[in-house]
Amino acid sequence: MNSFGNIFRLTSFGESHGEAIGGVIDGCPAGIYLDKEFIQKELDKRKPGQSDFVTSRKEEDRIEFLSGVYDGKTTGTPIGFLVRNEDQHSSDYDNLKDVYRPSHADYTYQTKYGIRDHRGGGRSSARETISRIAGGAVAQLALEKANIRIVAYASQIGHISLDRHYSELDLEAIETTPVRCPDTEAAKKMMDLIQQVKKEGDTIGGVVTCICKGVPAGLGEPVFGKLHAALGSAMLSINAAKGFEYGMGFAGAQYRGSEVNDIFYRRTDGKIATKTNYSGGIQGGISNGEDIYFRVAFKPAATLLREQQTIDIHGNNTVINVHGRHDPCVVPRAVPIVKAMAAMVILDYYLI
Amino acid sequence: MNSFGNIFRLTSFGESHGEAIGGVIDGCPAGIYLDKEFIQKELDKRKPGQSDFVTSRKEEDRIEFLSGVYDGKTTGTPIGFLVRNEDQHSSDYDNLKDVYRPSHADYTYQTKYGIRDHRGGGRSSARETISRIAGGAVAQLALEKANIRIVAYASQIGHISLDRHYSELDLEAIETTPVRCPDTEAAKKMMDLIQQVKKEGDTIGGVVTCICKGVPAGLGEPVFGKLHAALGSAMLSINAAKGFEYGMGFAGAQYRGSEVNDIFYRRTDGKIATKTNYSGGIQGGISNGEDIYFRVAFKPAATLLREQQTIDIHGNNTVINVHGRHDPCVVPRAVPIVKAMAAMVILDYYLI
Amino acid sequence: MNSFGNIFRLTSFGESHGEAIGGVIDGCPAGIYLDKEFIQKELDKRKPGQSDFVTSRKEEDRIEFLSGVYDGKTTGTPIGFLVRNEDQHSSDYDNLKDVYRPSHADYTYQTKYGIRDHRGGGRSSARETISRIAGGAVAQLALEKANIRIVAYASQIGHISLDRHYSELDLEAIETTPVRCPDTEAAKKMMDLIQQVKKEGDTIGGVVTCICKGVPAGLGEPVFGKLHAALGSAMLSINAAKGFEYGMGFAGAQYRGSEVNDIFYRRTDGKIATKTNYSGGIQGGISNGEDIYFRVAFKPAATLLREQQTIDIHGNNTVINVHGRHDPCVVPRAVPIVKAMAAMVILDYYLI
Amino acid sequence: MNSFGNIFRLTSFGESHGEAIGGVIDGCPAGIYLDKEFIQKELDKRKPGQSDFVTSRKEEDRIEFLSGVYDGKTTGTPIGFLVRNEDQHSSDYDNLKDVYRPSHADYTYQTKYGIRDHRGGGRSSARETISRIAGGAVAQLALEKANIRIVAYASQIGHISLDRHYSELDLEAIETTPVRCPDTEAAKKMMDLIQQVKKEGDTIGGVVTCICKGVPAGLGEPVFGKLHAALGSAMLSINAAKGFEYGMGFAGAQYRGSEVNDIFYRRTDGKIATKTNYSGGIQGGISNGEDIYFRVAFKPAATLLREQQTIDIHGNNTVINVHGRHDPCVVPRAVPIVKAMAAMVILDYYLI
Repeated sequence: MNSFGNIFRLTSFGESHGEAIGGVIDGCPAGIYLDKEFIQKELDKRKPGQSDFVTSRKEEDRIEFLSGVYDGKTTGTPIGFLVRNEDQHSSDYDNLKDVYRPSHADYTYQTKYGIRDHRGGGRSSARETISRIAGGAVAQLALEKANIRIVAYASQIGHISLDRHYSELDLEAIETTPVRCPDTEAAKKMMDLIQQVKKEGDTIGGVVTCICKGVPAGLGEPVFGKLHAALGSAMLSINAAKGFEYGMGFAGAQYRGSEVNDIFYRRTDGKIATKTNYSGGIQGGISNGEDIYFRVAFKPAATLLREQQTIDIHGNNTVINVHGRHDPCVVPRAVPIVKAMAAMVILDYYLI
Repeated sequence: MNSFGNIFRLTSFGESHGEAIGGVIDGCPAGIYLDKEFIQKELDKRKPGQSDFVTSRKEEDRIEFLSGVYDGKTTGTPIGFLVRNEDQHSSDYDNLKDVYRPSHADYTYQTKYGIRDHRGGGRSSARETISRIAGGAVAQLALEKANIRIVAYASQIGHISLDRHYSELDLEAIETTPVRCPDTEAAKKMMDLIQQVKKEGDTIGGVVTCICKGVPAGLGEPVFGKLHAALGSAMLSINAAKGFEYGMGFAGAQYRGSEVNDIFYRRTDGKIATKTNYSGGIQGGISNGEDIYFRVAFKPAATLLREQQTIDIHGNNTVINVHGRHDPCVVPRAVPIVKAMAAMVILDYYLI
Repeated sequence: MNSFGNIFRLTSFGESHGEAIGGVIDGCPAGIYLDKEFIQKELDKRKPGQSDFVTSRKEEDRIEFLSGVYDGKTTGTPIGFLVRNEDQHSSDYDNLKDVYRPSHADYTYQTKYGIRDHRGGGRSSARETISRIAGGAVAQLALEKANIRIVAYASQIGHISLDRHYSELDLEAIETTPVRCPDTEAAKKMMDLIQQVKKEGDTIGGVVTCICKGVPAGLGEPVFGKLHAALGSAMLSINAAKGFEYGMGFAGAQYRGSEVNDIFYRRTDGKIATKTNYSGGIQGGISNGEDIYFRVAFKPAATLLREQQTIDIHGNNTVINVHGRHDPCVVPRAVPIVKAMAAMVILDYYLI
Repeated sequence: MNSFGNIFRLTSFGESHGEAIGGVIDGCPAGIYLDKEFIQKELDKRKPGQSDFVTSRKEEDRIEFLSGVYDGKTTGTPIGFLVRNEDQHSSDYDNLKDVYRPSHADYTYQTKYGIRDHRGGGRSSARETISRIAGGAVAQLALEKANIRIVAYASQIGHISLDRHYSELDLEAIETTPVRCPDTEAAKKMMDLIQQVKKEGDTIGGVVTCICKGVPAGLGEPVFGKLHAALGSAMLSINAAKGFEYGMGFAGAQYRGSEVNDIFYRRTDGKIATKTNYSGGIQGGISNGEDIYFRVAFKPAATLLREQQTIDIHGNNTVINVHGRHDPCVVPRAVPIVKAMAAMVILDYYLI
């Protein structure tokens, strides 16, 4: 389905080369000042062509709000919004009409629906994430009131991995590098790698790390609606995501309990806290007041500027050869999407 | 919430030391022969005391079906079931009544609800997974009719990792070792490690690998209901799970697109297939007919037979010291739970 | 589906002649004292054999709670419960096994599921309402804390209609007559009618009126989740219900706006109120603080102690002739069910 | 919430005087030819100013589709659509900004949300039904393929009631009278009544009857998702609806079982049918293959062209006096809305 969330609920629509991408945000609290400049800025972070390190396709992506706002503030009624598709060179895709591109959703959509809009991937295009960014930006505005803040950054591109803990990083510096890595040295290496991959018409994967600060203890719905299960589902629904881990994550498989149990203590201000945070801010599926942090793995994008063997819808062998523009690394643009999805999940659980 | 699934939907109830653990399965197709022996056998796989490598607590865990079955077959009406709690030494927990055990859900439940059943972890106890096993066993019976089969095994315990691809393993041999690892050599090492950890009153984490065979192309609901997002959410909702990855997973972050794009071809029988399966059987959130495979990371269990520093509900420092029985490694018993959850997800999407 | 409600959610199971009727209440607030005596008393109101004016079938219907309660109080975790089926003379139904009884659900269940438990109507039996009463009783306990009170009574049986407005009735007197009509004169006539109908082996319909007092202004979710739409759906889901109206109801079709607009005024205590209440306490789908009132129409029960023409599952003509016990009028036992459903709806919206 | 349906799901947005009214249709089957002319025609039926018997406000209400369609056909992806608000004289409402109009949703929205768009009723305006008509028109196109047809007509305006059974009426003639009553004689009386009421600045209520033909046996989800419960909820969610009844409805309260039990028989073509249809095509919540029919009661619209006493948001007494245009009778425009809602419900259950 194309809806996300329970109380704060985004319903999204739109194909890459249709009229528009948009959505409806239902359940947004009333009285939130809808800061359109902030929302547009978040959208600009996922815009193609913003730097040399992402796809150079030109998309203006101006958002228009259609309802749910009066006198600049949300009214508690559904917020409809849209972004017109412009400058979509649909004819660029004519030669791909009957072809199943490797590791794209062409074959599965065709099988499931018996019909598909092949232009630019249609509904399976990453342009769909425009709706997510918009929903997430509105959620961030609502979370601000509750002093909850969400940050995300590129922590790995290919084999270049930022091995420092997030507490040692300057999280205000994320937007200072085009790859959205707050460590300038690592960022430099990542950019070099992306440039090289791009030159070769190839693509590369990576990892986004996200931290949710200020989440009060008590959010989460046992047993199937655990907070990290909702976060995991949200992240895995992003295009190209292949893995999710929170707290100690996969590394936890190697640890002993005596090494990673988080010891409770009482802080000088009386608040209960844990000395370490291997749990990742969630215990038994419910937030415990510590930072929530998690990592999302992304595979390399499937579109290559290279010849690739494949078959067409008739089952015949064929070769595709895409020219022009492609996205050498999805990670820099995935950063704001991860943040947006996290904001929607946290707000949704906050409002239950 | 305590319901799972959309069409095939399990609602679960029960605390570790209450009257019973049970649930309601809604949306099960009519006409399925309810093989109670198979279901009890699946339950026995998660039963404590089944081997030296899991907790030695004695639980009989006999399932009773209350509705939804007539003449041995499902009728399409809800299937109520329960397992009575017996031999629960509730008084063992008297000294833990006012204590927040490290890395348990004591503190978060108390904060969220203002009240909790402290005995054996109450609702947050892994005994809750009895309902999951029951639901998953019924789902497996339904999937059998569609020739869909799900297998899971322990692929890592602590640092002992089974590095062979699942296609090289004898998946029929999983149940031949108490740790549920089909490679006897690796299984031996895993058991040695668990024995040692147990002796030290400590615990150890691990990884479960799961494969879904025979899933037809076309299952999955873009864009938020992607098949792997549903699988991820299901797996992350299992006690002690910290991470989920499918297909190339986190390793995909290091690859280039040219290395991992799955090339389509036409098999001799006319079926469309891919030469490799880095995608993990899912593309654009929809199954493509290849094997679906994924991995779930589990942290070490929080209950240690050791002194641990912590605080009580009044914020005072205290020391807990649990005696008797504990679970040195959750992984062997997590294997059937992973399988059960996968079966429910796949069936749910199959029925949409 | 067999679940009801969003936040406060009842999932029910059970057939008339299976092992048990029961359910799971999810989302009940923590800290409610679970008054089992009250709940059993509510169940006793729908018990067969309670008076001469309902079916004389003997059912003890003792409720057992299985989870979600600790120290007598709800813990916020799901409340499992069941009522064993006893003294079910299943063999009484042997001759009905292959027959479609007129105006029963035999034919539709068989068509939908291809299989059905014919004994006593199986899942479509009114015994299923045991779960509703249990869920509604728990909801009433929670509503009590919010000073919301719900009352219901028989306002019509056959052509005997109680034409006085509810404000003129002694609503404390409802349980003083076996038909649950607070006007003793009307009740007498209703009982006479039921006796006569019963003697003839026939059945008769009626109407239940329900009033929700103390509901604060602001409950209801426009535009599809209007409070009265949820109430209507709840009431229409009760066996034998054929109609629902609230406020001025069907009579409103004849009125002019100038006759029935409810004029706002400020009460001496400062509260905003309306001079009349044709709206029935709901405006634009949201409660306005006035009494919510509505009526539910019930058809006569389909089981007659008379010969009836029909066909069997092979399409052959046949005659059925039920002997023994039947329910001459469903209305007295529908009264507590209406109240229970209303309580669950109001609480659900209260908790959103 | 602002979503309707489970499989075929409409999410709607928009206020009377905002930028646009629109929505998203999720779950529409792929491959349906999206006949825009038909959809626009359905919208025109609810358009103000279409005749002397409805409000004379001018609204063009051209629908624009934004996604989900390729080559003229639905693709199974969400269908976004919108209708721009034009010629909305927002300043007409300036004097109503701080006033609670009698029997409108002004007070309840203000209480619930603390903020509201007062212009033309904002979200509570009947303009919201544009989304319903659009969703219902698409549903009708999908139902056509299954040979299911839905018709609705005005069966009562004020005291003028069309007392003939629908089977005696020419259902093709509904659109030949501006009030949408297929009996020209009754229609004439209804129009006279509306004219008179209009002249007096008053409004009048009425009833819409709806028939669903060709619905196969087996649609409906016991026990809470009974088909008529879903229809009832859908109808009661329409602005100004006060009651719903199906089959024998409220009249059924007066009948005896022996009078209204529907006797099964085998038709000459072998199909199982009932001799009468007091059940209204639904038994035990599941369709039985007979015509489904029901009635929806509408109260008179609250906006009068008369002086009315009320209070403002500060609790002060005031008098409102609306000039210009009003809707003397909502029924003619409610007819297509009832039809649209029925189409969405039936399709939704058809697709489960």
